[in-house]
Amino acid sequence: MVAARHLSAERGGESDRYDLIVARAPVKRRLATTAPQPDAAVAPLADGRRRVVIEAVSPEVEGGRFPSKRSLGERVAIEADVFADGHDAISCVLRYRHQSETAWTEVPMLALGNDRWRAEFAASELGRYVYTVQGWVDPFQTWRLQLAKRVVAGQDVAPEMEVGAQLVEAAAGRAQGADATALLKHAEALRSGRDAAGVPVKSPLPNPLPGGERELPSRLPGGEKVSNQLIDLMDRHPDRSEAVTYPRELEMLVDPLRARFSAWYELFPRSAGEPGRHGTFRDVEQRLPYISSMGFDVLYMPPIHPIGRTNRKGANNTVRASSGEPGSPWAIGSDEGGHKSVHPELGTLDDFRHLLRAAEEHGLAIALDIAFQCSPDHPYIREHPEWFRHRPDGSIQYAENPPKKYEDIVPFDFECEAWRELWAELLSIVRFWIEQGVRIFRVDNPHTKPFAFWEWLIAEVKREHPEAIFLAEAFTRPKVMYRLAKAGFSQSYTYFAWRNTAWELTQYFTELTQAPVRDFFRPNLWPNTPDILTEYVQTGGRPAFAARLLLAATLGASYGIYGPAFELCEGRAKEPGSEEYLDSEKYQLRSWKTDSPDSLREMITLVNEIRHENLALQSDRGLRFHPTENDSLLAYTKSTSDLADVVLTVVNLDPHHTQSGMVTLPLKALGLESDKSYQAHELLSGARYMWTGPRNYVEINPHASPAQIFRFRRRIRSEHDFEYFL
Amino acid sequence: MVAARHLSAERGGESDRYDLIVARAPVKRRLATTAPQPDAAVAPLADGRRRVVIEAVSPEVEGGRFPSKRSLGERVAIEADVFADGHDAISCVLRYRHQSETAWTEVPMLALGNDRWRAEFAASELGRYVYTVQGWVDPFQTWRLQLAKRVVAGQDVAPEMEVGAQLVEAAAGRAQGADATALLKHAEALRSGRDAAGVPVKSPLPNPLPGGERELPSRLPGGEKVSNQLIDLMDRHPDRSEAVTYPRELEMLVDPLRARFSAWYELFPRSAGEPGRHGTFRDVEQRLPYISSMGFDVLYMPPIHPIGRTNRKGANNTVRASSGEPGSPWAIGSDEGGHKSVHPELGTLDDFRHLLRAAEEHGLAIALDIAFQCSPDHPYIREHPEWFRHRPDGSIQYAENPPKKYEDIVPFDFECEAWRELWAELLSIVRFWIEQGVRIFRVDNPHTKPFAFWEWLIAEVKREHPEAIFLAEAFTRPKVMYRLAKAGFSQSYTYFAWRNTAWELTQYFTELTQAPVRDFFRPNLWPNTPDILTEYVQTGGRPAFAARLLLAATLGASYGIYGPAFELCEGRAKEPGSEEYLDSEKYQLRSWKTDSPDSLREMITLVNEIRHENLALQSDRGLRFHPTENDSLLAYTKSTSDLADVVLTVVNLDPHHTQSGMVTLPLKALGLESDKSYQAHELLSGARYMWTGPRNYVEINPHASPAQIFRFRRRIRSEHDFEYFL
Repeated sequence: MVAARHLSAERGGESDRYDLIVARAPVKRRLATTAPQPDAAVAPLADGRRRVVIEAVSPEVEGGRFPSKRSLGERVAIEADVFADGHDAISCVLRYRHQSETAWTEVPMLALGNDRWRAEFAASELGRYVYTVQGWVDPFQTWRLQLAKRVVAGQDVAPEMEVGAQLVEAAAGRAQGADATALLKHAEALRSGRDAAGVPVKSPLPNPLPGGERELPSRLPGGEKVSNQLIDLMDRHPDRSEAVTYPRELEMLVDPLRARFSAWYELFPRSAGEPGRHGTFRDVEQRLPYISSMGFDVLYMPPIHPIGRTNRKGANNTVRASSGEPGSPWAIGSDEGGHKSVHPELGTLDDFRHLLRAAEEHGLAIALDIAFQCSPDHPYIREHPEWFRHRPDGSIQYAENPPKKYEDIVPFDFECEAWRELWAELLSIVRFWIEQGVRIFRVDNPHTKPFAFWEWLIAEVKREHPEAIFLAEAFTRPKVMYRLAKAGFSQSYTYFAWRNTAWELTQYFTELTQAPVRDFFRPNLWPNTPDILTEYVQTGGRPAFAARLLLAATLGASYGIYGPAFELCEGRAKEPGSEEYLDSEKYQLRSWKTDSPDSLREMITLVNEIRHENLALQSDRGLRFHPTENDSLLAYTKSTSDLADVVLTVVNLDPHHTQSGMVTLPLKALGLESDKSYQAHELLSGARYMWTGPRNYVEINPHASPAQIFRFRRRIRSEHDFEYFL
Repeated sequence: MVAARHLSAERGGESDRYDLIVARAPVKRRLATTAPQPDAAVAPLADGRRRVVIEAVSPEVEGGRFPSKRSLGERVAIEADVFADGHDAISCVLRYRHQSETAWTEVPMLALGNDRWRAEFAASELGRYVYTVQGWVDPFQTWRLQLAKRVVAGQDVAPEMEVGAQLVEAAAGRAQGADATALLKHAEALRSGRDAAGVPVKSPLPNPLPGGERELPSRLPGGEKVSNQLIDLMDRHPDRSEAVTYPRELEMLVDPLRARFSAWYELFPRSAGEPGRHGTFRDVEQRLPYISSMGFDVLYMPPIHPIGRTNRKGANNTVRASSGEPGSPWAIGSDEGGHKSVHPELGTLDDFRHLLRAAEEHGLAIALDIAFQCSPDHPYIREHPEWFRHRPDGSIQYAENPPKKYEDIVPFDFECEAWRELWAELLSIVRFWIEQGVRIFRVDNPHTKPFAFWEWLIAEVKREHPEAIFLAEAFTRPKVMYRLAKAGFSQSYTYFAWRNTAWELTQYFTELTQAPVRDFFRPNLWPNTPDILTEYVQTGGRPAFAARLLLAATLGASYGIYGPAFELCEGRAKEPGSEEYLDSEKYQLRSWKTDSPDSLREMITLVNEIRHENLALQSDRGLRFHPTENDSLLAYTKSTSDLADVVLTVVNLDPHHTQSGMVTLPLKALGLESDKSYQAHELLSGARYMWTGPRNYVEINPHASPAQIFRFRRRIRSEHDFEYFL
C-alpha cells in the first residue's frame, strides 16, 4: 500500500496545484537526455555493461497495472523477448513466487527462436503470484558455442583451452565446497589437455543448444569427450554480476477451477413452489436434483432480500403493482431489512444456509446476486441519507437514465462525502454472505459504480477468500466491460446473445480468446437471461434454443441459462421488437412444466457430460475457427495445448433448414496426419465417421440436432495395442 | 537523471544481493491487496472519487520507455481511450510541452466513438516533446445532455433548472472577475426562467455533442434559447478536483524533415578520380552536379579515415593485400591517425570541409560513416590497450564470428573496465565531425555494440544538436533492429533487399508502416549496398534494377542507392550464389562510365522529381496495398491523411515478361467517388487514362518501365472552375 499511497499523494497534490495554462510559457529548461521513466530498463552510464534487453513479457495486462488471470492447477507459460547486442549466448530465468512466499523460485527459460523465450510453472495455490524475468550474457556458453564451430571448421582449438580454463576458474571463485573443487579440477584439465582420470581432452563438446538457429551437430569430428559435469557445474554458478531484471514484477491471480469452467443455472426461487404459491428456499431444495442431473455446477438466484413496497412495479413492468403482486427482487429493502436480510416469503436465513448445504451435496454452488441499489423503503435511506443524492427540493433522487425513470430504485451516491463509510458498508454486505457460506457472486450492473470501488472490494474479499468468484453483469460499451474484468471480476457476461451469424461469432470469439483480452477477461455465455430474449430464439423456436445452447456450451468454458424458461423454450416477448419476456418473472410468479416432452433437458444433460469428459472444452484458450464453404455452418475446434484432446463443433446457425458444407481442418495443427484416415466420433449422436484429409462433408438438420460435436481418434500402429483406435 | 540514477542504484543493489534460490521458502507474508505498480492509475480508498480511466494512449513506445518519433512540421495526433463508469459525460484534454518549456499547453480532445478520443498539435520545434492526457467527469455537460433528452421526451424540466443553477454557481466560485459575474447572472437566469435581457429561458439547448452515440438533434421542440455564452463559460471553468491524469508523461522526438524523407546516394570517394588514380575530396566535388541533378539530398561516403596496413585485405577480399592495394576503408586507423583524421590520399581536413560546403550548395548533406572498430595499426591500440580484449598469450583479439576471422579489424571491448572512458572517447569522435559541419551519420554494425551505448550517445548528441540524424546499418534479427531504433536511431536499414515477391513485400511493409513499429522505426530502403548484390538484380538485369529502384522510391519515404554501381546496373557477383560484387570497391578502386546510355540516371531523376511533387510519397504512414489478381503485379497507394494527395504505384515484379491484371481500389477510402470517372495520370510516361469504378486494367512491360505511378485527379463540378480536372 505504501507505493499506492505515495502515488496518490503526488497526484492529489498535482491536482490541487492545477492551473489552466493556455499560452506557452517562454521559460527554457533543458530536460534530462535520458528517458525520465522510473521503469527504464537501461540507465546509460550508470549501467553500461548490462547488455541484455527484456521486452514483451507475456502475460502482462496494461503494463503490469493489473494481474493476469489463471485457474488452480494450470501450467502457466511465461514468455519474453530476451536478447543482447552482438552474437554472445545469453541465459535467462523466470522468477516467480506465490504471494505467501518471500523468496523467488527460478526456472530456466528455453529459447523458442526469434529471441523469444519461455518457461512454465504450475499454479498450485490460489491467490496472487508474482513473476519477472532475469537475463544475462553467458560467456561460458558463448565459448562452448564458438568452440564447437571452430572444431567443425577444423581449426586448432588448443589456444581456446586457456580461455575456457579462465572462465571455469572464475566460476570456481563464485562456488563453494565440492563444486569449487570440481571446477578447479576442470580448469586444470582444460589447461593440461587431460581430465581428472588422465584421459586426453581436446574440448568439451557442446550439447545441442536451445534455440533452433544456434543448434549444433550433437557429435563433432574427432570424438572429443563430453564433459556434462562441467556444463552442469557452470550452469549452477553463472556470472550474473551484469544480469538485467525486467523492471516490473507482474502479478497473476489464480482463481478456483470454477472461475474458468462452470455451467450456471439461473432460477427465480419464488417460482419454485406449487403453482400460485410463493416459492421458498425449501422449494428450491426440491429442484436441486433436477438442476444437478442436467450437469450444472452453479445455481444462481436473483436477489433474495426483502422487496420494497413504495413504487413497486406490477406484472409486465406496469408502473404500480396491484395488491399482492411481488415486485422486482432488484428493488431491495423494506421494513423487513436490507441487503443482509432474507425476504420473509422465501424463508429464513437458516433456511438459506440449509439450502446452501443441500446444494453442495448436489455438487452445486449457490451464486448470490449483488445489486448495490435500494428500494425507497430500504433502511439505509432512513439511517444514512448522506449515502444518497437528493434533489434541490430535498426529495431523494430516484434511478434514471433520462428520459427513463426507475422510481422503485434509488442508487447509492458513490461520490458522496461519506463515500469511505458507504464503501465499507457495501464490503460488509459481501462479507456477511461469505460468512453464510456463499463464495460466488453475480454482480448486477457493476458498470454504474466506480471501477476503483470494485477493484478495492474484490481485492479485499479475495485477500481472505481467494476462492471467491465474481461475475460481472455489465452489458455496456466494450472498453467498460474489459476494464471491469481488469479491475478484478473473475467472469463477465458478453455480447454472445447478440452474435448470431458465423462472421459475428468468429470475430467476437477470436477477440475474446486471444491476447490481450484472454489474459484478463473470462467470458460466461448466456443465450438468455431474464432481461434478454433475443429475436433469434423468438423467431427460431426450439432449434434456435438448441443451437444457442450448443454454441454457448462449446464456445465457452463457462456458460449459463436462465431456466426453466430456457429449457422449455420460452420465446414469447412482451411485444414485437422487444427483448422483454411476456409475463416476465422479474415482476410476477411463474409456474413451469419442467417435465414437458419438448424440454431441452436431455440435450443439456448430454452436452454438459461432453464438457466434463473433454478437457479441451474446459478452457477458452485453444479455440480456432475453420472454413465451411457455407455461411450457415460455423465450425471450430477447441484443443488442449498438448493436442491430447481436440473437439470439433459444427453448428447449423439456420434454425429452419438443413444445411451442408465441407469443413476444412488444419490437420497438422490439430495433431492429425494428413495422409491417414482418422475417426470422427460424433458425441451427441454417438455416430462414428471415417474421415480422410482436410476436407470432409457435414450435413445438419436443425430439427434433429443443430450441432455436431466430434472428437477425433488417431490410429495407433503399435503391436502392443489390440484396440484399433485409442 | 535523478530517477534513472535512483533506479540503477536499486538494481545494482538487487544484483549484488543475488542469491540463487531453488527451493521454496515457507515463510508466509501477506502482499498488499492492491497492485504494487508505481504507475497505478487508481489507488482505491485514497482516490475513490476519481472515476475516469485513461488507457491505450497512442503513440506510446514500450510503455513510455522510449520516445516516439515524428518530424518537424507534422501535425501529431494523440489518441487515448478515456471513459468512466455509468453514463456521465466526460471531458478530456491533451497536455503537451516542448522540452524547453515548463508549462503545459492544453488541447481539448474530441470523441471518435467507442470511448476513443483524439487531439492534435503541431511539432513545430526540433527536440523532445512531452505529453499526457487528463480527463474528468463533467457534471454540467451531463446535465445539459440529460436535459435535452428530457425536453425531447416532453418532460417538465422546470425542476432541473435549480440543479443547473447550482452547477453554474459552483463554476462562478472557481472563476474570477467578469466570468464569475457572468456565471452568477446565468445561474439567476436559470432560477428565474428569464435571461439577463429578460427573455424567457426554458433550458439551455445543447449543441451537438462530440461522439456519435451521444449526438442529439440540433434543434429541440419548443425552440428553447441557446446560451452559447453559458456553455463557453462553463467550459472555461470546469471542476477538475477529481480529474485523472494518465500516470506517464510520454515523449516524442521531433527530427528534421530529412529523417523522414530523404534520398541517399552512396559513393566511394576514392573511385571518384580519373581511372587508375586514387580519388580525392576534390574529385568528389566534381561529382556533385551529377548526384544533385538526379534529385538526391544525402551523399554518404564510407569511412574517410586512414586505413590500416597490418593484415590489409587485397582485391576481392584476398587475405593479404599486395603492395599498392588500398585496403578496406572500414579498417580504420594507421600511423597517420584514427577516427578523427582524414585518409591522406583523400585530402586534408580542410578539403573535407570544403567538400561539405560545396555539397551544401548543391542541396546535398554529407553523411559520414561511423564504424567503431580499429585496424591493428590504430593509435588507440597503442595508447589505450585497456579498451581492447586480449588473448591469454597477451596478443590482441581480432574481430571474429567463429569460425570466420577478420584479421584486419580489432573490435573495441565495450565491457572493459575502462568502458566509461572508452564511451566518452567514442562520443568525442561524433562531436568532432559535428564540429566540422556533419549532421548525418550512417552507423556501421550498431548491433555489435550495446544498446545502452547508442541510447546514451545519440541522446547526448541530439541534446545539443536535435537536427542530427543517425542511420543504423544493422542487418540482424528483427527484435535487435527494432531495439536499436527505439534506442534512438533516426533511420534504419531494412530487409527490403531480400523482399522480392508481392506477398513478402506486402507483409513486411504492412508491419513497418503500422503501429507499433511505425512509431519508432523509420525504414530507409536500399536496393543495393557495397555488401548486398541480390540474386534478383544479378539475374534480372536492368529491368530488375529499375523495378527495385521504383519500389524503394515509392514504398519508402527514405531510400538510397550505392552508386554508380546501381545506376549502371552492376550485377556481376564474385561467384555464383554470392552477394559479394566481383571487384568490389570495398577492396579496390573502380572506374565508372556514368555517361553510359544504359544508365538508370534518367529514371532516377524522374522518380525523385515525382517524390518531391507528391506529399504522399514523403511519409510512410499512408501506405496501403491493393489486390491485382496477378502475383507478379504489386499495387499500393500512399495518401496524405487529408487525401489531398493519393499516389498509386503498380510494379511488375517479373523482370522478364510483360504482366497485366486488374487493380482493385477502395475508392471511398481514397477519396474518389465510385460512380464517377476519374483521371489516372501516369507520372513516369505522362500518359493519362480515364478510369471508372474500383477495377481497372494495367499492363506493364518491364523492359520499358517496370512500374507505373498514377496520381488521381477528381472531377470538380463547380461553375467557378474552368479547368475540367483540378
